[in-house]
Amino acid sequence: MIKAGIIGASGYTGGELLRLLVNHPNVELELATSRSLAGKPVTSTHRHLEGFLDLKYENPDSEYIRERCDVVFLAVPHGSAMNYVPELLDGSTKVIDLSADYRLETSEFEQIYGMKHSDPRKAVYGLVELHPEAAEEDLVANPGCFPTGATLAAAPLAAAGLIDIAVFDSKTGVSGTGILPTETSHYPNLAENIIPYKLTAHRHRAEILKELTRLDGKLRNINFTPHVIPSIRGIFTTAHLFTKEPLSTDDLKAIYEDFYRNMPFIRLPSGVPSLTAVRGSNFCDISFEADTANNRVVVLSAIDNLVKGASGQAIQNMNLMFGLDETLGLWLPAAAP
Amino acid sequence: MIKAGIIGASGYTGGELLRLLVNHPNVELELATSRSLAGKPVTSTHRHLEGFLDLKYENPDSEYIRERCDVVFLAVPHGSAMNYVPELLDGSTKVIDLSADYRLETSEFEQIYGMKHSDPRKAVYGLVELHPEAAEEDLVANPGCFPTGATLAAAPLAAAGLIDIAVFDSKTGVSGTGILPTETSHYPNLAENIIPYKLTAHRHRAEILKELTRLDGKLRNINFTPHVIPSIRGIFTTAHLFTKEPLSTDDLKAIYEDFYRNMPFIRLPSGVPSLTAVRGSNFCDISFEADTANNRVVVLSAIDNLVKGASGQAIQNMNLMFGLDETLGLWLPAAAP
Amino acid sequence: MIKAGIIGASGYTGGELLRLLVNHPNVELELATSRSLAGKPVTSTHRHLEGFLDLKYENPDSEYIRERCDVVFLAVPHGSAMNYVPELLDGSTKVIDLSADYRLETSEFEQIYGMKHSDPRKAVYGLVELHPEAAEEDLVANPGCFPTGATLAAAPLAAAGLIDIAVFDSKTGVSGTGILPTETSHYPNLAENIIPYKLTAHRHRAEILKELTRLDGKLRNINFTPHVIPSIRGIFTTAHLFTKEPLSTDDLKAIYEDFYRNMPFIRLPSGVPSLTAVRGSNFCDISFEADTANNRVVVLSAIDNLVKGASGQAIQNMNLMFGLDETLGLWLPAAAP
Amino acid sequence: MIKAGIIGASGYTGGELLRLLVNHPNVELELATSRSLAGKPVTSTHRHLEGFLDLKYENPDSEYIRERCDVVFLAVPHGSAMNYVPELLDGSTKVIDLSADYRLETSEFEQIYGMKHSDPRKAVYGLVELHPEAAEEDLVANPGCFPTGATLAAAPLAAAGLIDIAVFDSKTGVSGTGILPTETSHYPNLAENIIPYKLTAHRHRAEILKELTRLDGKLRNINFTPHVIPSIRGIFTTAHLFTKEPLSTDDLKAIYEDFYRNMPFIRLPSGVPSLTAVRGSNFCDISFEADTANNRVVVLSAIDNLVKGASGQAIQNMNLMFGLDETLGLWLPAAAP
Repeated sequence: MIKAGIIGASGYTGGELLRLLVNHPNVELELATSRSLAGKPVTSTHRHLEGFLDLKYENPDSEYIRERCDVVFLAVPHGSAMNYVPELLDGSTKVIDLSADYRLETSEFEQIYGMKHSDPRKAVYGLVELHPEAAEEDLVANPGCFPTGATLAAAPLAAAGLIDIAVFDSKTGVSGTGILPTETSHYPNLAENIIPYKLTAHRHRAEILKELTRLDGKLRNINFTPHVIPSIRGIFTTAHLFTKEPLSTDDLKAIYEDFYRNMPFIRLPSGVPSLTAVRGSNFCDISFEADTANNRVVVLSAIDNLVKGASGQAIQNMNLMFGLDETLGLWLPAAAP
Repeated sequence: MIKAGIIGASGYTGGELLRLLVNHPNVELELATSRSLAGKPVTSTHRHLEGFLDLKYENPDSEYIRERCDVVFLAVPHGSAMNYVPELLDGSTKVIDLSADYRLETSEFEQIYGMKHSDPRKAVYGLVELHPEAAEEDLVANPGCFPTGATLAAAPLAAAGLIDIAVFDSKTGVSGTGILPTETSHYPNLAENIIPYKLTAHRHRAEILKELTRLDGKLRNINFTPHVIPSIRGIFTTAHLFTKEPLSTDDLKAIYEDFYRNMPFIRLPSGVPSLTAVRGSNFCDISFEADTANNRVVVLSAIDNLVKGASGQAIQNMNLMFGLDETLGLWLPAAAP
Repeated sequence: MIKAGIIGASGYTGGELLRLLVNHPNVELELATSRSLAGKPVTSTHRHLEGFLDLKYENPDSEYIRERCDVVFLAVPHGSAMNYVPELLDGSTKVIDLSADYRLETSEFEQIYGMKHSDPRKAVYGLVELHPEAAEEDLVANPGCFPTGATLAAAPLAAAGLIDIAVFDSKTGVSGTGILPTETSHYPNLAENIIPYKLTAHRHRAEILKELTRLDGKLRNINFTPHVIPSIRGIFTTAHLFTKEPLSTDDLKAIYEDFYRNMPFIRLPSGVPSLTAVRGSNFCDISFEADTANNRVVVLSAIDNLVKGASGQAIQNMNLMFGLDETLGLWLPAAAP
Repeated sequence: MIKAGIIGASGYTGGELLRLLVNHPNVELELATSRSLAGKPVTSTHRHLEGFLDLKYENPDSEYIRERCDVVFLAVPHGSAMNYVPELLDGSTKVIDLSADYRLETSEFEQIYGMKHSDPRKAVYGLVELHPEAAEEDLVANPGCFPTGATLAAAPLAAAGLIDIAVFDSKTGVSGTGILPTETSHYPNLAENIIPYKLTAHRHRAEILKELTRLDGKLRNINFTPHVIPSIRGIFTTAHLFTKEPLSTDDLKAIYEDFYRNMPFIRLPSGVPSLTAVRGSNFCDISFEADTANNRVVVLSAIDNLVKGASGQAIQNMNLMFGLDETLGLWLPAAAP
């Protein structure tokens, strides 16, 4: 059994890690930390897990964590993970960081997140379908939620060198803002509404840019605008991709089916994707349609932001890092409707 | 023109007073106060009113308010209104208090709200349909939102001495919790859910009790349990009323039509009431059905908690206090759907 | 492996049976029927199950079903199940009927559902926690969704002979109305609203009455009023129970903990139950609070109407009928939030 | 008083016309037609209007309509208005058509809507802010809901010849699909979801194209993808506009303020627009932000699809056609939140 620890387990991504790991056949939950809740049962905050685990929140030091855990998930704020990583990586403990700390080049991180980076170590970007080499690593940087949906939508066309301009118009459920109440999550503000934010300069754009330019070194015109919709979970991405040459929907079908062959968590439904069909699951559903008028292709992707966009993908990485089938513990359909 | 001031204008009830008063034919908005926002335009918080008024928030003393205003609406927290009232009532300025401070006997207020009351003055309870005498007063205590819906649902039967046991199971939109984000208003907590609270001891029960026992001195078995539903506005009350004798639905129809004759804001629709049909309006829609099995009557009422349950009723009181038609400025249908 | 068939698999309860059975360790999905969709992939309607099964809808006769299946779930309309049951029960095939056909006495069924009953056979009522004897049967009548939540909320007090009057004010998610669009499920009608219906005469009242009077032969004053809330799933029941003697919240705690001891799907959380904490799961969460004023007790229960209120409970019955642990295939926490 | 008739008054746009006209100071509601509901009170379907009008639905012939009405609003399906218009236009009756029949060139209409057009008459496109000449006409083609939001967002930049590529990613409330339940409006399908449709070929694209190319004859690369969001009302448009030269946010501010000077229903809020701030009102709120990276400008617009996107704009047209102030009967703020 893999002994797993979750640092910062009281938030939504921590809760999802717990929900998925309590039923993972190869994992034993060893510890869950929270500074402010140390000593309290984990189910005092994650009430839906009552009956599934009787852990109490702890607040141990890194040495203790390292000794008890084979794998540690960091579900901590940006800027905090970099303090844990050097202390946890000892050659036997593996670390999966759900924060942004190791997703970008150090200098780019410092510029975009406005803080110094204390650990210039490099990590593989754990977007599993594009980075199988993560399986060989002890440290994986788990991708951001928006970049997961956007990058998977465009990757096949980027890899084929076909994209001229990419516009990602993304719509996220509000759980992405976290477990604490905010102006955006205030029901009277969000219900019956849609709230765009960081119209031209969201931090996640850098991850999308990094991944897509890795696939196509000439691609530069990448644009990203996120919105919050009245939904708890889910990220729906509408990718308006202007291509260098006209493509038919059949062309797209061939390209996407080929690119995502044998990837269990990518589905290419015949209709449009639906947040309902992926909610609570680790799938990324993708569909596409060519616009014959203007060399535009509309690609749609749907994920659950807390699963494929965070905790599920982290466990998918864990499975691979430990030589397991990547679907273990994750092969759950959405509870639709 | 009546010169009106709103003390505590930055919240939801303040916003509704402003929305309704900007189009009131006999009212001139003279001032809107907010301690923390003094100097800023009122539309900086109430953005939907852009184009309708160019007031700035002020933070004046009571003398200044009294001199400039013919009527003052107190949209302040419980316990705060009692500090304004003695200073504002000078024989010419009228005051409508939307807080709880003057709704109950002083001793009962102190017990339920857990604070001393500094002003033992009595005020009429401004539930307009039951208290026409409010028109003669300089100070009116505007009712709570739940008591408005519950009391209007049961009053005709209470006045007829027919109720044995009353159970009010109320469902409110979340705007009743105010403009500031809370655990309850956090979208992931409320959406796709329903949140009961203060199951047996909500403060508003005292108002319902006071009004119904005024109508029927023998009625004591009055029970009230509120819930928050995923809706911004509205209070829907399901009154399960056990009666002393069997009643038919036709009996109910006769009793309610007679009791609410010529009351413009009470409607008795043939189907069940709907929050959609009253949203944004000052109506209270009521329907009823007799349960032949157990001497039970189910009475349903629907109001907009911010209008008939707060600011609209306050303006209805103002109209009567100034000798105007009670519908002035309030004769607006809901924007359904 | 138990070979399972689902008759009427294209609706919501059919979909939930499929979702839960694809991962059940002891079950092999043998067939799924639909008259109108025969020949089409099951995933053409249940898109969220893409990747989990490659069944096609069939439309076979009863003999064929009986031969292929060890257990058959009837997810068909009321009045239809009674045509299947006599043909399927052959001494080796077990049948779990999710319709109302075998829940009541034949004469009562005929009166309430307004149709003749062609099969006077008796069946055990599969409310698992109250009917362990269902494990011995070949035919089980799976309970209605409202009765599951209401009966479990009141059963401990009824069994103790303590209830004088019971008022069940229930709030259901709209998936209970089925997969086909209706006036009630029309988003502009339901969103930001709450829709009561069958205020005094819902068919499910008979099931609640039957079960509670079975526990307490003297209890007759049982009242039930359902509402649809803006939620896809879930039934939240507020039970206002007037008791024959005063009870404290501690008394209630003792009674409920004793009654539900060792029942894995009943949880008694310290706070109020939440639809979020049970969504997608087979749990029934119950809490309670004594109202010292009027011998009233408020008991709250939360279930997922499609799981504990339908398909999950059906599988729980199946597990017991086949001598398995009742939690097999059902031990899944809600994906909260 | 202007005598007004509404043909096809039982749907949502009919209901909005009624809601706004019952309080219009210069209008008398003369008739409301519905074939299927003739003889029934208008309030039997529009229950929120109870107390405001006592019209019954009629089903008269065109001559009768023409004689009784000074203005007729056609709230009928596409393809039906063309049968009314020739019979209603007699030199004294004015007609405002809310259907698509007269918005496009006859041949384009026939191609896009797949039906023959029986009346080749031309009509002014009643997008008031861009077509003041509508005031002189007897027949006005009221714009589609999406084109109103999209065109107003881009018009100032198109008129300046600055747009190279326009991508309109629009999000509409579901009331745009009408009063009858559909798959899209089925609550379990739409809640917690977002549903894109007609990704590359929505009929409304032709209106946007026609208007923007009228302002800039060289602009051709215009793209439009609509989505339905979990909201009853509102259209939120995210316009990704690639410009021929770099623009700053200050440049945009100057261009938009100049273009929309003295237009009462266009507001340019300092923050992002909100559906909440326009709900129930006739405003179009617009904001903008320059993306320095890629010569992209993000322009956001928010309207109420049933008001500025349909019935409110129709009344705005009516006001101008009768020489009245365009705000008459429409100067209502949103009931936010």
